[in-house]
Amino acid sequence: MRPNERKFDELRPITINSEFITHPEGSVLITIGGTKVICNASIEERVPPFLRGQGKGWITAEYAMLPRATEQRNIRESSRGKVSGRTMEIQRLIGRALRAVVNLDKIGERTIWVDCDVIQADGGTRTASITGAFVAVVLALGKLIEQKAIAEMPITDYLAAISVGILPTGEAVLDLEYVEDAEAKVDMNIVMTGNHEFVELQGTGEEASFSYDELQEMLELGKKGIEDIFELQKNVLGDLAELIVKKEDKS
Amino acid sequence: MRPNERKFDELRPITINSEFITHPEGSVLITIGGTKVICNASIEERVPPFLRGQGKGWITAEYAMLPRATEQRNIRESSRGKVSGRTMEIQRLIGRALRAVVNLDKIGERTIWVDCDVIQADGGTRTASITGAFVAVVLALGKLIEQKAIAEMPITDYLAAISVGILPTGEAVLDLEYVEDAEAKVDMNIVMTGNHEFVELQGTGEEASFSYDELQEMLELGKKGIEDIFELQKNVLGDLAELIVKKEDKS
Amino acid sequence: MRPNERKFDELRPITINSEFITHPEGSVLITIGGTKVICNASIEERVPPFLRGQGKGWITAEYAMLPRATEQRNIRESSRGKVSGRTMEIQRLIGRALRAVVNLDKIGERTIWVDCDVIQADGGTRTASITGAFVAVVLALGKLIEQKAIAEMPITDYLAAISVGILPTGEAVLDLEYVEDAEAKVDMNIVMTGNHEFVELQGTGEEASFSYDELQEMLELGKKGIEDIFELQKNVLGDLAELIVKKEDKS
Amino acid sequence: MRPNERKFDELRPITINSEFITHPEGSVLITIGGTKVICNASIEERVPPFLRGQGKGWITAEYAMLPRATEQRNIRESSRGKVSGRTMEIQRLIGRALRAVVNLDKIGERTIWVDCDVIQADGGTRTASITGAFVAVVLALGKLIEQKAIAEMPITDYLAAISVGILPTGEAVLDLEYVEDAEAKVDMNIVMTGNHEFVELQGTGEEASFSYDELQEMLELGKKGIEDIFELQKNVLGDLAELIVKKEDKS
Amino acid sequence: MRPNERKFDELRPITINSEFITHPEGSVLITIGGTKVICNASIEERVPPFLRGQGKGWITAEYAMLPRATEQRNIRESSRGKVSGRTMEIQRLIGRALRAVVNLDKIGERTIWVDCDVIQADGGTRTASITGAFVAVVLALGKLIEQKAIAEMPITDYLAAISVGILPTGEAVLDLEYVEDAEAKVDMNIVMTGNHEFVELQGTGEEASFSYDELQEMLELGKKGIEDIFELQKNVLGDLAELIVKKEDKS
Amino acid sequence: MRPNERKFDELRPITINSEFITHPEGSVLITIGGTKVICNASIEERVPPFLRGQGKGWITAEYAMLPRATEQRNIRESSRGKVSGRTMEIQRLIGRALRAVVNLDKIGERTIWVDCDVIQADGGTRTASITGAFVAVVLALGKLIEQKAIAEMPITDYLAAISVGILPTGEAVLDLEYVEDAEAKVDMNIVMTGNHEFVELQGTGEEASFSYDELQEMLELGKKGIEDIFELQKNVLGDLAELIVKKEDKS
Repeated sequence: MRPNERKFDELRPITINSEFITHPEGSVLITIGGTKVICNASIEERVPPFLRGQGKGWITAEYAMLPRATEQRNIRESSRGKVSGRTMEIQRLIGRALRAVVNLDKIGERTIWVDCDVIQADGGTRTASITGAFVAVVLALGKLIEQKAIAEMPITDYLAAISVGILPTGEAVLDLEYVEDAEAKVDMNIVMTGNHEFVELQGTGEEASFSYDELQEMLELGKKGIEDIFELQKNVLGDLAELIVKKEDKS
Repeated sequence: MRPNERKFDELRPITINSEFITHPEGSVLITIGGTKVICNASIEERVPPFLRGQGKGWITAEYAMLPRATEQRNIRESSRGKVSGRTMEIQRLIGRALRAVVNLDKIGERTIWVDCDVIQADGGTRTASITGAFVAVVLALGKLIEQKAIAEMPITDYLAAISVGILPTGEAVLDLEYVEDAEAKVDMNIVMTGNHEFVELQGTGEEASFSYDELQEMLELGKKGIEDIFELQKNVLGDLAELIVKKEDKS
Repeated sequence: MRPNERKFDELRPITINSEFITHPEGSVLITIGGTKVICNASIEERVPPFLRGQGKGWITAEYAMLPRATEQRNIRESSRGKVSGRTMEIQRLIGRALRAVVNLDKIGERTIWVDCDVIQADGGTRTASITGAFVAVVLALGKLIEQKAIAEMPITDYLAAISVGILPTGEAVLDLEYVEDAEAKVDMNIVMTGNHEFVELQGTGEEASFSYDELQEMLELGKKGIEDIFELQKNVLGDLAELIVKKEDKS
Repeated sequence: MRPNERKFDELRPITINSEFITHPEGSVLITIGGTKVICNASIEERVPPFLRGQGKGWITAEYAMLPRATEQRNIRESSRGKVSGRTMEIQRLIGRALRAVVNLDKIGERTIWVDCDVIQADGGTRTASITGAFVAVVLALGKLIEQKAIAEMPITDYLAAISVGILPTGEAVLDLEYVEDAEAKVDMNIVMTGNHEFVELQGTGEEASFSYDELQEMLELGKKGIEDIFELQKNVLGDLAELIVKKEDKS
Repeated sequence: MRPNERKFDELRPITINSEFITHPEGSVLITIGGTKVICNASIEERVPPFLRGQGKGWITAEYAMLPRATEQRNIRESSRGKVSGRTMEIQRLIGRALRAVVNLDKIGERTIWVDCDVIQADGGTRTASITGAFVAVVLALGKLIEQKAIAEMPITDYLAAISVGILPTGEAVLDLEYVEDAEAKVDMNIVMTGNHEFVELQGTGEEASFSYDELQEMLELGKKGIEDIFELQKNVLGDLAELIVKKEDKS
Repeated sequence: MRPNERKFDELRPITINSEFITHPEGSVLITIGGTKVICNASIEERVPPFLRGQGKGWITAEYAMLPRATEQRNIRESSRGKVSGRTMEIQRLIGRALRAVVNLDKIGERTIWVDCDVIQADGGTRTASITGAFVAVVLALGKLIEQKAIAEMPITDYLAAISVGILPTGEAVLDLEYVEDAEAKVDMNIVMTGNHEFVELQGTGEEASFSYDELQEMLELGKKGIEDIFELQKNVLGDLAELIVKKEDKS
């Protein structure tokens, strides 16, 4: 049995609060079970050197955890003087995922900085970050539309992410919380667009491997979970949701 | 006139929420006007090398801001690969202030790690950090008492901090918010114990200087503001407040 | 048409030379098309602190490129003073993949350091690294058997990796070389064991997404390519190949 | 009794030697008791990016100790690869203090770099640095006047600093040497201008606190000590002293 | 007796392979006994800031060892986060040596980056690097001539290097391999031009000193060894060798 | 003509002051012309890990320049966060040179830290550092004898260093000052023991080379200069000089 009598294909309670922090152009506090992430999107009126003069924009993401987001306190990366491999991997993933649904040609020479700061961690922080960051980015782009800096919403589709995995019992489950993740033999993160296409698929056997059939089972669970999340994103975005034209479903 | 028609000797609204984050032994979200700081206190069952074997504990503090805590996004210190001078100055101040009211001889060979993470900044982040950190530390020590790891509350007095300053008009004011701080000619941080003694006094002329009389005026304002904060701390601590024996007032 | 008239499901020429470098316990130069990687496996007679006293071993990997492995010279990571996110991602991948087929309980308190140094790059350096590193690790473990330091080959199955992808034309192809990789809309790395189970599956849309059907097509191509690589590994290992007991095929 | 039968309100012998090092535009060796600091002021013909094009100058300070300035050898900060929090705190203090008396609008787009290198330490190195640095800066500005690069001395007043503190006996004393500083319960650094206004006031209880009356006592001692230092600075500056127009005394 | 019955004035077998790596403008794999170094020369179409606008070029060198180039694995300098003193010393030596024979005024505003990567080490890696790097640089300059970017070969003479030393027995020997180097009491590296002039001479007593006569003996051996190397370089360069005008012999 | 009408074989005025700094076990301020270096020798009662338990000692050296030791201000290495290649080269040289004349077997398990801090630079700072450091080390060892920590002076001979070079005119000169060094075509540093043996010989052509005859000429000049320095060292050491048994002259 999963903690809190959760079913194998059941998400933990999710909320997305868009009124927590006031300075950023877009900001949400996403909560999924015991995981809480502040996702801030900031608009900078310039692009990195490699893009200058091309009339095109950029999105980049940074990810961090407060030292005591976890059960045991972690050393702060600024104190260590360097960012860990895990952090780099995650922030590269978040940036790449967002770039797949934002039309960079239509945001002008601007950089969207996405900061995902985990203030409490209980599994699934990277997928929660992607899901929350998508909303923060749409809110920030909404500000640009409001200021008439851009004409239309440069988003090609919804974007959300969830984790799936295989427990030591061999059961495939949706949305692993920390105690499950720690002992799972396979851990997979799925990032999907509104039309059910994959943006990222990262499956990892932890000193283990997984079969073709197990893969199919996990993909099915993930698709189901992400559909629920799209609904929540839509509700939080309100009027802005109308501006996102979902692509035709290919699933 | 100050923003929001505040009087020269008036604090901004303060709240201290002790149920925001669940993992740390002690944790509060302190809000003062637009400034929001998560203060977490973690107990580690060992001390730094220079204290080993002396039966004595230690308190150390770290301070950071989320990149978008401020109006303009700041570069993350972990990305820069080093902690700024400002951050170091502040975290040394927080640790020193707390050590003045915690009896380190009575906490055993333990380190209390205090993490002050500013998630939104509008002036006074370092004083809010000290005020919130004091509560988080008492909560964490309360856990140790509950676990019978220590016998009594090893706190010698209350501790709170506030900023005061002198505006370009020459007027001394209490609790500067960001727009005031940016133009103030003098900025002073006062850290006080429950019996009205100073733990830290840091007054700085910003390309300016201040007279003996201006100093007295600021000290008076600070004392008044801190008294109100002690009341709030007491309310938040509830039963634990009973365990803190205030020292005789020397003011 | 692909460069050199390669078919969509055709590997580039691969060689694995196990007599290039003499100091390491296991060492190969793997060449796949224009990609050349030196994979060295070193045995260290101790484990990292988190494993001490458990009678268990560890495998860790490092990956680097010579500055001029690429068409344009890259700045050396030692000169930058830090390892890039891409490098960290790759070396974490290599280590994780190897740990899935080495029985760490049977190598004693030893660390196997795997160094993958790309001396010439033309796409697929991370998959070539995994494929070559597997051979280097088996050679190093063979030395331990020869020295009677361990009794049997602690390898649970073969391990190899290959890249697959989807070209802008929509065609799925096997083993992308650099010019293909640079323009592919989807890039996927597949790491598989001898019994056709997945150890890692990392698929990424580059400012694009991919459908469920495209995923299946890529998995099919990958499996086919990896089977050929297993044959080559077996030939290079010679007598040592006999010591590896392949697990039952689950595909 | 204090070491060397010093009275509670007595400075240690101070000398300021302005002919020790020849390259810098302004340079002094300041000695106060066993503390020796080389203070060099260098003129750079440009300002940091945030000031460019404003016709205004800047002053910045750096502070360091030789490894064996102290009784026990310290590790060199260049070997550690980073500057300590203490060093940062001190160099920020020195720069801020000097900026309070130099009219940055009148030095043109120039940066004055102040380097305070402690070659022997016996307490009070930061206050000695400020006192010596003020003289070095005036000497350097004198060179600019001589070269007709600026028309008049852009100094608004004298500047000097001293430490005061409270010994474990409860006695307030002036100018703490190392053995006193190590055991003092309160340590305060006072930076004052020629007209007796404060530029910086930094009082710190070391695991202790101090009362309002103790504060007043320390301020009195500090003012007395600094007056003597102004006399010495005036003598060392000779003709340049005539160019500094002291502001009206506000004390 | 030396290992492999080598005579005191005998070089180990040397080969220079110019077809090992394809991307760089000039590239060789130099092998001398058990020492193998990849020397790549890259042409960059710009110079460092201190040379801009002077119509002059620059040569700079970097040196590194693979972690397992040595009998014991070394920690990677990129993992340490800094380059060792030994590495810096060697790369400064290689760059300086090459600049002595390349006419920087005749290569235009270009930087030649020389990368010497030791893939297997058995003594004499720095001298092998210089010898191989010279060939790589000539090959790269040959490419510039071929592309008509420069008119003639801007090389003023041949350049090669070798180590000599004095064994504990007092015997002077040519070309020390690792086991000899480790116990030698004197170690000297000689870099010479084709006309027998010195470019660098670095002799070091290892907790020992050496006499004037011993110096002469080592210089004699070094000259003899380097003459043989010039022959090999000439053969490898083929037609390009014709373009190098050797200066008159001054020995 | 050389500056100040110096002859080609004439040293600049040298002084060695052993009473400048009081904390270190051995300390001198060495001045040669415009070059001033503080050389401190500190005794630490332990050795680095690689020597522990062998009953043997170690000497290590660090070298630095104050930012304004030079005509133009240099950025502080602690601010850069790393030590330059030049600094590393020099400090390795100083340590190696001293180890050649100190009998490490006779100093017990102690480390002698030598700190050479250049407070004013005018050429020859590395050779002045060696010459001064030798005196500081003998003074420090004298303290150990005084404390009866060691029985006799563990110095096998005198040690001094000087620079020689060849000017653009072709003339060989002794003891180059900065303006000469900047334009010299050859620069050589010679470190010698009291019996005229070489400890280090480092000759470098600066985009130039030098003949066998030029080498002999420089060696002759260097020997002459070093003889004068030995006399000065002897005078400064006073009674301690008697304890150094010079080895038989081999020149």
